[in-house]
Amino acid sequence: MTATAPTSTHALLDKHAGVLDEIREALRTRSWYSRYPESPSPRVYGETAAADGAAAFEAHRNTRYAAELVSATDGRWVGGEVSPYGPTLGVEYPGLDVDGALRAARGALPAWRDAGPQVRAAVCVEIVDRLHQRSFEIGNAVMHTSGQPFVMAFQAGGPQAQDRALEAIAAGLVEQERVPESVVWERPAKGEPIRMQKDYRIVGRGIGLVIGCNTFPTWNAYPAIFADLVTGNAVVVKPHPHAILPLAITVEVARTVLSEAGFDPALVQLAAENDGQGLAKVLAERSEIAIIDYTGGPTFGAWLEQAGAARGALVYTEKAGLNTIVVDSTDDLKGALGNLAFSLSLYSGQMCTAPQNIYVADSGVDTNEGHLSFDEFADRLATAVQRLTGDDAKAVEILGATVNDKVRGNADSLESIATEAEGRVVLESRRVTHPAYDQAVVRAPGLVAVDVSREDVYTEECFGPVGFLIRTSSTEQSLAQLADTVHEHGAMTASVYSTDEAVLEAAREAAAEGGVALSENLTGQIFVNQTAAFSDLHGTGANPAANAAYADAAFVANRFRVITSRRHV
Amino acid sequence: MTATAPTSTHALLDKHAGVLDEIREALRTRSWYSRYPESPSPRVYGETAAADGAAAFEAHRNTRYAAELVSATDGRWVGGEVSPYGPTLGVEYPGLDVDGALRAARGALPAWRDAGPQVRAAVCVEIVDRLHQRSFEIGNAVMHTSGQPFVMAFQAGGPQAQDRALEAIAAGLVEQERVPESVVWERPAKGEPIRMQKDYRIVGRGIGLVIGCNTFPTWNAYPAIFADLVTGNAVVVKPHPHAILPLAITVEVARTVLSEAGFDPALVQLAAENDGQGLAKVLAERSEIAIIDYTGGPTFGAWLEQAGAARGALVYTEKAGLNTIVVDSTDDLKGALGNLAFSLSLYSGQMCTAPQNIYVADSGVDTNEGHLSFDEFADRLATAVQRLTGDDAKAVEILGATVNDKVRGNADSLESIATEAEGRVVLESRRVTHPAYDQAVVRAPGLVAVDVSREDVYTEECFGPVGFLIRTSSTEQSLAQLADTVHEHGAMTASVYSTDEAVLEAAREAAAEGGVALSENLTGQIFVNQTAAFSDLHGTGANPAANAAYADAAFVANRFRVITSRRHV
Repeated sequence: MTATAPTSTHALLDKHAGVLDEIREALRTRSWYSRYPESPSPRVYGETAAADGAAAFEAHRNTRYAAELVSATDGRWVGGEVSPYGPTLGVEYPGLDVDGALRAARGALPAWRDAGPQVRAAVCVEIVDRLHQRSFEIGNAVMHTSGQPFVMAFQAGGPQAQDRALEAIAAGLVEQERVPESVVWERPAKGEPIRMQKDYRIVGRGIGLVIGCNTFPTWNAYPAIFADLVTGNAVVVKPHPHAILPLAITVEVARTVLSEAGFDPALVQLAAENDGQGLAKVLAERSEIAIIDYTGGPTFGAWLEQAGAARGALVYTEKAGLNTIVVDSTDDLKGALGNLAFSLSLYSGQMCTAPQNIYVADSGVDTNEGHLSFDEFADRLATAVQRLTGDDAKAVEILGATVNDKVRGNADSLESIATEAEGRVVLESRRVTHPAYDQAVVRAPGLVAVDVSREDVYTEECFGPVGFLIRTSSTEQSLAQLADTVHEHGAMTASVYSTDEAVLEAAREAAAEGGVALSENLTGQIFVNQTAAFSDLHGTGANPAANAAYADAAFVANRFRVITSRRHV
Repeated sequence: MTATAPTSTHALLDKHAGVLDEIREALRTRSWYSRYPESPSPRVYGETAAADGAAAFEAHRNTRYAAELVSATDGRWVGGEVSPYGPTLGVEYPGLDVDGALRAARGALPAWRDAGPQVRAAVCVEIVDRLHQRSFEIGNAVMHTSGQPFVMAFQAGGPQAQDRALEAIAAGLVEQERVPESVVWERPAKGEPIRMQKDYRIVGRGIGLVIGCNTFPTWNAYPAIFADLVTGNAVVVKPHPHAILPLAITVEVARTVLSEAGFDPALVQLAAENDGQGLAKVLAERSEIAIIDYTGGPTFGAWLEQAGAARGALVYTEKAGLNTIVVDSTDDLKGALGNLAFSLSLYSGQMCTAPQNIYVADSGVDTNEGHLSFDEFADRLATAVQRLTGDDAKAVEILGATVNDKVRGNADSLESIATEAEGRVVLESRRVTHPAYDQAVVRAPGLVAVDVSREDVYTEECFGPVGFLIRTSSTEQSLAQLADTVHEHGAMTASVYSTDEAVLEAAREAAAEGGVALSENLTGQIFVNQTAAFSDLHGTGANPAANAAYADAAFVANRFRVITSRRHV
């Protein structure tokens, strides 16, 4: 067997070969790796970075987007984004000519395919590096479309999303590199062995459709966008109609880098739309779309899964779930309560990873501050939330703004839930006044205590600042509920607090049974809501909340195919 | 970062650690590798092996299958296999109690999961080794269910299927091993770094359903069976009702090895059925079935794909296609014709990889024996087929027996196709008399010449001993037809004959465009129908004939999921 070395060359491959080595290794070892500092500090990014980024964001407002975002437009201008903080963005984007755009994307594929995995990966890294340079602009855009507080919008929308992009690039790259480009195969035979040269050619599936969400427009879209690109596909990026700008900037940067690198910018195009236009469905039904990635509600997600299967398209979805916490005991009550309060409060619980269902046994919780009854524990958690979010000016930097009326409705529903479920409102969802944006609707988390028997109440996702404290007969029942409800309804995250190794081991079993990742005894600066690129998988693909994970082999391996040609030599 | 070594131990892991190393390396390099000699010669297998195997096969006949094949039976006995060579097999198999069987399979999963990838792989290798010991018995069973000639039934049903099983084991094993069992993750922070231990646990999806086919009961089922098992799943094996015995023997061996190795045999169970019982559909609709693998007709395959997607099951299908050959020119006419004649004749074209559509330009073919017109080339190919299959006694060892009435109908349809399509019957499908089995219906390949315009005739699969010689305006058009018809209708194989490097390069482009593997200028003992485990992928997953390939990363990576648990250390 002889394998030939990759033959592709490109200036960007020379530039980024070192990065490709780093990210291959980081993925292999699942060790800590970050290319992009997550602190928006001027010491890191320079004294003018924040102001420059804010100005760049402001420059988009009340204009038609200046750079080219599509390769074929229908001539209309679309977009009606309104910031959850109040202001109308007033940005207009070119409408997509679907036929022309898909034709252009198909035309761009052969050269992208023939560039090979390493060149594609290097071009993708360059795109991410250039996105990084616009992190403050993107941070403002994410803040004013998702309602995230600024620091979070900067971090999750900028560096953390960029690291997840690199992770997807690494995953796609190494998966392609597992197949040699060419081998000489030699089969023993009577007399001379039979020798054949076999060339293995990586071929993308075609055009990917990435359907973004309102709350994490970049973070949830980048893994799919870069997984598609690195494996030789083109991408149509369809943002949520309320969160177009962050992905428009992304598409602009990608197209610019592609052009500069000698590729057709039609490989990445924006499919912006007005509210209610239904463009995702139109695109998802096109035979040219070979891969669909979706983050959003379960109803449309389920439709996509079936419609995709009906015509052989791959569909990766992240939908909804019941993120679950089991509290058994702790030797650091203050740390546990502080950590839980922050997880509940961050972005008002509007994260797909925010906890919703907190199981506590009727017998209460043993702690380093003594035994707490169920109700005492509930009240202590309420106090921790109040302490964290009691000061309006400070609270808004954690809570952000509510993104839509559904979330606001959920925040207002605690009293009626408690009445309906014969439970107790442990903490009302407090209305917070934003010192800078008086139109923003800001809500602190509320808590309702209910009995474990009331699955009718707590086994539906109640998105936003609402947590359920669920009284069980024992920690054993709490863990059984974790396994059962996650298996049936899905979850992106789970965590457990216990000082008992046997309980922790049982929790690991329950998490494996339910198919959800488990965090244990988080009391410091790591939160159950957060996952680290290259190390923590986001989602598992093993429960109904998501059929894939960022970014394992299964997320990338089927986005390309291998075409062999063989001949005697 | 520290990664811990795998901690699992098992006697079979000690026994097969060397084999696991060999197959990991063979898959990585895609070099020649075979553990099981494919020649049924007594010099390889011993003087009595053939007779012993035949006797073991005969011992099954007209009995209830002696060994236990299910973990829960409904008390009925099913099975009505009749050999394509004539004899009734008369074997009866226990009917499956679906509820009980799936419950038993689920109960067997935790221990299988906790055994870890290496132990599972070693147990799987032991199963394959033990299947190998029964290759002659299995060869007879494959012959008398599929209609394959004996040597082919031995090779494809025995050693070659076993090598494909090893390939799937290797692919599944290395994909699981890419994820470390445990790492310590260390994030720089002000003061002390944040350190977490992260454990990654491999969890199978649950229960796989493998739906076998009539023509290659073992070869087409083994990749899925062993991919499921090695990645921690249980398997229900649902054979074609006409080809149960080869998979019953397989299930018996698997259950025996599992029991001996300390695992619950419920991990592998047989779902035998009578003709028309519809058990595949019943099983495919069960929520416990997480993975479906299917080889068979496109209608049921498409239903499975949609039904699976509707409830989140993975579905891998191999359906039907138009295997395609383009003849441009050759410097070894005799070798090319001999190779083509054999590919058309082997098992009467009843291989999913057998050629059907042979494109030749109207201007004819340049050869080392001078220029041949389209019709001259067609007649030369007919002569080559006649020469190969002219002697009945020798012919049956290549042709085998026709497997069903559909194939026989296709063989009888040449005259009407030619009339309908204004074409020419180049060669009638000759009726061959089997010297040993007078009830066998044996047919040699027939050839019809038609114009390229008659896509209505040649773009449907005509399974069995029928080849179309399709007259095009040029080799360029031939290659365009290859790309277009394969892209639209699918194909498992393609090949090209040309002495012109530019034509070969264009053929590689057409194959990449259509999404099919290409063989070039086969004139010796390698045939387009045949693929080598560990080196050639079977199918590409890039055209409608199959949505997966044996056995790439995409075939295995999604059969298991990774569940993380993390904690501060």
